Amino acid sequence: MNDFLESIMHRDPAAKSKISIILTYPGVKAVFFHRIANFFSVAKLDLIARIISQFSRFMTGIEIHPGAKIGKNLFIDHGMGVVIGETSDIGDNVTIYHMATLGGIAPSINSDNQRDVKRHPTLKDNVVVGSGAQILGPVVIGKNAKVGANAVVTKDVEENAVMVGIPAKNVGQINKGGKFTPYGIDSTGDAEDK
Amino acid sequence: MNDFLESIMHRDPAAKSKISIILTYPGVKAVFFHRIANFFSVAKLDLIARIISQFSRFMTGIEIHPGAKIGKNLFIDHGMGVVIGETSDIGDNVTIYHMATLGGIAPSINSDNQRDVKRHPTLKDNVVVGSGAQILGPVVIGKNAKVGANAVVTKDVEENAVMVGIPAKNVGQINKGGKFTPYGIDSTGDAEDK
Amino acid sequence: MNDFLESIMHRDPAAKSKISIILTYPGVKAVFFHRIANFFSVAKLDLIARIISQFSRFMTGIEIHPGAKIGKNLFIDHGMGVVIGETSDIGDNVTIYHMATLGGIAPSINSDNQRDVKRHPTLKDNVVVGSGAQILGPVVIGKNAKVGANAVVTKDVEENAVMVGIPAKNVGQINKGGKFTPYGIDSTGDAEDK
Repeated sequence: MNDFLESIMHRDPAAKSKISIILTYPGVKAVFFHRIANFFSVAKLDLIARIISQFSRFMTGIEIHPGAKIGKNLFIDHGMGVVIGETSDIGDNVTIYHMATLGGIAPSINSDNQRDVKRHPTLKDNVVVGSGAQILGPVVIGKNAKVGANAVVTKDVEENAVMVGIPAKNVGQINKGGKFTPYGIDSTGDAEDK
Repeated sequence: MNDFLESIMHRDPAAKSKISIILTYPGVKAVFFHRIANFFSVAKLDLIARIISQFSRFMTGIEIHPGAKIGKNLFIDHGMGVVIGETSDIGDNVTIYHMATLGGIAPSINSDNQRDVKRHPTLKDNVVVGSGAQILGPVVIGKNAKVGANAVVTKDVEENAVMVGIPAKNVGQINKGGKFTPYGIDSTGDAEDK
Repeated sequence: MNDFLESIMHRDPAAKSKISIILTYPGVKAVFFHRIANFFSVAKLDLIARIISQFSRFMTGIEIHPGAKIGKNLFIDHGMGVVIGETSDIGDNVTIYHMATLGGIAPSINSDNQRDVKRHPTLKDNVVVGSGAQILGPVVIGKNAKVGANAVVTKDVEENAVMVGIPAKNVGQINKGGKFTPYGIDSTGDAEDK
């Protein structure tokens, strides 16, 4: 728990104290409620699981499907509008900003053959998802990759990549130590995620 | 009512049961509250209408102006952040994802001559609006068209079109049976809406 | 106060009456709560300030950090999902639509040397920020500039500019009287903000 709080202090320059994080960070509450909802989901008590998940959405503005798998130290910052779909799989030390979606593709066309199929993204360790980014479909986002604000990702993303735009393009690379090296002309990518 | 619930089961692969949809789907509650708010709006009891609409926003995260016209089987999935403006006109079997806007254009410049004028979009039957999409102004979105995630649409859209990007471009067509045919190079459009 | 209400009537064609604005506009409540939270923040009572700010977020869907500086007549319309960061500085008569962010850049990489540094945007007088726009980093948005829906801005913006896309480009200019003159081919910018 202390590790988790320290990882947030490290990731949010506006965080003043651990007690403030526990009391006033919606993303911390949402992950706490998800642990409970996921317990009921695994036990196949879907309606109870869903009611807990929706209560959490009401309290925090963050909607995590009870079936989603979440690793250690997930930090959802601000969090309003975040949607994490049923078959999402999130690694360790991932950071997700408000209004980001880990969603499915076009269920409205062919939902019936999408049941019980992996249809949401997999995020590897240390991924950062910018505010408003939409990651859609059963894609894999590689380790340390960053998805810029409002980017739309519908394909797999390499490790250390920085993805920007609609559809998102790889504009550079995160090196060891977190430094960003742009690939070329439109090298604004370092600023796209926050 | 049963038709409506079945249309949602068909459109959301994560939906487990009809009772779960009634109890835990914010989009279902928002449409229910809108029917009441719209009744008061038509009766010119604007303040009561608006209080109901804002209570619904508080409960569901979805803001539908009491004056908006809504057809059969509107499904607002997830819904947090959705804004549907006063003079919007929505057909039957439309699906709208979270954070989508049916909004106006630049009222902050010239609001005074925009009163009592049609200034929000018209969505024809079976339209799908992706998460974060912004449809602005009194434009018409044709039957079966799909607006991709985070797309910004400010012009009329043809029937069966798939719109992607800022400003949104038509990247392909939805054929009978729901299959997508891309128009060309940047053919990622089939994955943009979810 | 009356000035403030009249400025909103002028900016929102759907506003029916001043009593309706006081009772039912989340953006008005959020600015009211912020005045209180900011008082405690200035007094260095950070935890109380943050609790008020988060209570306001729960009531309104709008998250304003207690430390943010806000000028006269800020109108946050709809407001769900809006995030205004700690070191933001907002001038007079600014309009911000729902889901817009005044945020920081990549704190998750190097948060520790970002404490107590200006890391959020400055908005000059009369700026309009469209729905879903993400303005990131300690950039300055010049007087009367407009940032389009879902645009991502990470650089300074000139006075009277209209910014569209990811990353946002200047597509035209706001002239005296509010008229928009596009710069060239892709002249859809006049419709991007709403």
